[in-house]
Amino acid sequence: LSEEIYVDQARLRRLAEQALERVGVPPAEASVGADALVEADLRGVETHGVQLLSFYVSCFRQGGFNPQPDIRVVSDTPAVAILDGDAGMGHIVSAQAMLHAMDKARDCGVGVVVVHNSNHSGMMAYHAMMALQHDMIGWALTNGGRVLAPWGSADKLFGNNPQAFAIPTGQELPIVVDMAHSVAAGGKIVMAARRGQRIPLGWGLDKDGQPTDDPHEVLDSGSYCTMGGVKGYCLAVVMEVLAGGLSGGLMTLDFAARWLPFEPYRTCHFFQAIDIGQFLPLSEFKEKTDGLVRQIKGAKCSPGVDRVYAPGELEFLEKERRLRAGIPIHTSVYRELETLAADLDLGFPQ
Amino acid sequence: LSEEIYVDQARLRRLAEQALERVGVPPAEASVGADALVEADLRGVETHGVQLLSFYVSCFRQGGFNPQPDIRVVSDTPAVAILDGDAGMGHIVSAQAMLHAMDKARDCGVGVVVVHNSNHSGMMAYHAMMALQHDMIGWALTNGGRVLAPWGSADKLFGNNPQAFAIPTGQELPIVVDMAHSVAAGGKIVMAARRGQRIPLGWGLDKDGQPTDDPHEVLDSGSYCTMGGVKGYCLAVVMEVLAGGLSGGLMTLDFAARWLPFEPYRTCHFFQAIDIGQFLPLSEFKEKTDGLVRQIKGAKCSPGVDRVYAPGELEFLEKERRLRAGIPIHTSVYRELETLAADLDLGFPQ
Repeated sequence: LSEEIYVDQARLRRLAEQALERVGVPPAEASVGADALVEADLRGVETHGVQLLSFYVSCFRQGGFNPQPDIRVVSDTPAVAILDGDAGMGHIVSAQAMLHAMDKARDCGVGVVVVHNSNHSGMMAYHAMMALQHDMIGWALTNGGRVLAPWGSADKLFGNNPQAFAIPTGQELPIVVDMAHSVAAGGKIVMAARRGQRIPLGWGLDKDGQPTDDPHEVLDSGSYCTMGGVKGYCLAVVMEVLAGGLSGGLMTLDFAARWLPFEPYRTCHFFQAIDIGQFLPLSEFKEKTDGLVRQIKGAKCSPGVDRVYAPGELEFLEKERRLRAGIPIHTSVYRELETLAADLDLGFPQ
Repeated sequence: LSEEIYVDQARLRRLAEQALERVGVPPAEASVGADALVEADLRGVETHGVQLLSFYVSCFRQGGFNPQPDIRVVSDTPAVAILDGDAGMGHIVSAQAMLHAMDKARDCGVGVVVVHNSNHSGMMAYHAMMALQHDMIGWALTNGGRVLAPWGSADKLFGNNPQAFAIPTGQELPIVVDMAHSVAAGGKIVMAARRGQRIPLGWGLDKDGQPTDDPHEVLDSGSYCTMGGVKGYCLAVVMEVLAGGLSGGLMTLDFAARWLPFEPYRTCHFFQAIDIGQFLPLSEFKEKTDGLVRQIKGAKCSPGVDRVYAPGELEFLEKERRLRAGIPIHTSVYRELETLAADLDLGFPQ
């Protein structure tokens, strides 16, 4: 417990904003980037939070991230488009693409915008959830970062290719799903490697496709196990194509084996918005999703289970808690942020 | 082996067509229904093949399926629509909805058509794959038939809610994914119950949410385990809403606990078509998906694995085999089909 410092979200947000501005990101975009990072921390998804800020700053400084991308429409119809992210920070490119998809959904009922030539885009739920305040269903997914193999092999071909859905409700908390296609979060395997710990069998394969409990073997020459066995593999393939294929961007072996701060990774994304009110009256839809959430929360608990949660509910509850009590930041990350702030001549804003 | 009779697909197709016509389905629609059933058998998905024909016929006779539904457009924009299936056979309603979605995709780049008041719609890959010949990406999913519980409970709320994606390629076989959200196919649990066999732990829960190897407990008062644990549950919720919520139709507890031949089940579906050529040149897309499939097939096999398959490849190979050698029909099913044919005064067409 003493390893964590509780920091107010507004303070982290200011730091992230100022850091992004310092490396050349215009204020409005810096604000979006910071919001995406802090929202991840608020929801308890620290792997995609401010702990990445130092790395992102080095990407901007070394050329991997373009601070002022010219995000260009490559092709466009009333309902669909391809954007070229011009190697911008993925969070900022994605937010812009999702806005574009929602504009299209407003015009047509549904909008699909795919992106190539982007970068790491953080927590996909952030982009999907942009749809909620517009009473739309959001779907956001990405490829990038080869970690998964085809079923029956350990040759890394696919990204963990997370996808997120966000579905509006009325009185209840929105339904939000955000999932990658590995059994265990990649961050947990990386963390175990750093700490010299073993991982459970079933999380990863070694280079020969054998189950291993050595996280280094998994990371260096093996691959993550796919969730649901062959099903996770199949879904990862679909996401790879929806993002990289449909956008005319990179897929599978086109990607470098590692993210390097001096090279754009050129990730691809897919965003879809569905304007509910063009299907049925919004009040009717929300009554239905409220009812669904209540049925879930009212389901009988299995032995040892205290409470049944709707998808995304835990993260909303965590956010409420962290808005009040602050965000627990590991001391090592806190020190890194202090160093970063000093380095950028910012001071760690109070 | 002697328990199976190899039957030519054309013979099964004629039987199914004639049977559907006999119960009042117009010829063009009967042909679609028969094609959907036989395609499932050809692909090795017998659970959704002609073994269901006798049950479907009883549904038509007893009022659960409407042989001449007035499939009505409830709401419509250039890119999205809701259809009322008027309790038609789900396969036929779905095919019509998918055609409608593809028309919209042709106009707008993407089309989404949701359906309420339908019935069992068979193998979802059939509907998704309709997109392939039009050089579109197809996505088809359905709700219905409560078998899954929220994570942490065994209260059946959701259908197995299968979703299927079909993605065009150039020279290689198309990429086709068709998956439900349980660990094991429901058909396998039903089969074990019929045969008095146990099921592996991890397939199902009893009424208290405890793992059980008794298929009766699972079917009568428990629920299927969700694939990938909490992830399968979350995806099943999304599918439930996309189909039942967006269409203004039934969801979760609105559904009867069992399919009964004398009552429409009123299943809901969701169909999406993406017109690839409105994103990027088709040849470029197909080159990319061909390359992807070749990388998969070229991946190094894990120990004990003979060959790495692309998603859907096994089913295409099975179809080729069965087109040549016939479709293996279990003798008990064959006898049922003979009885059905006699009953409908058809004879089993040669």
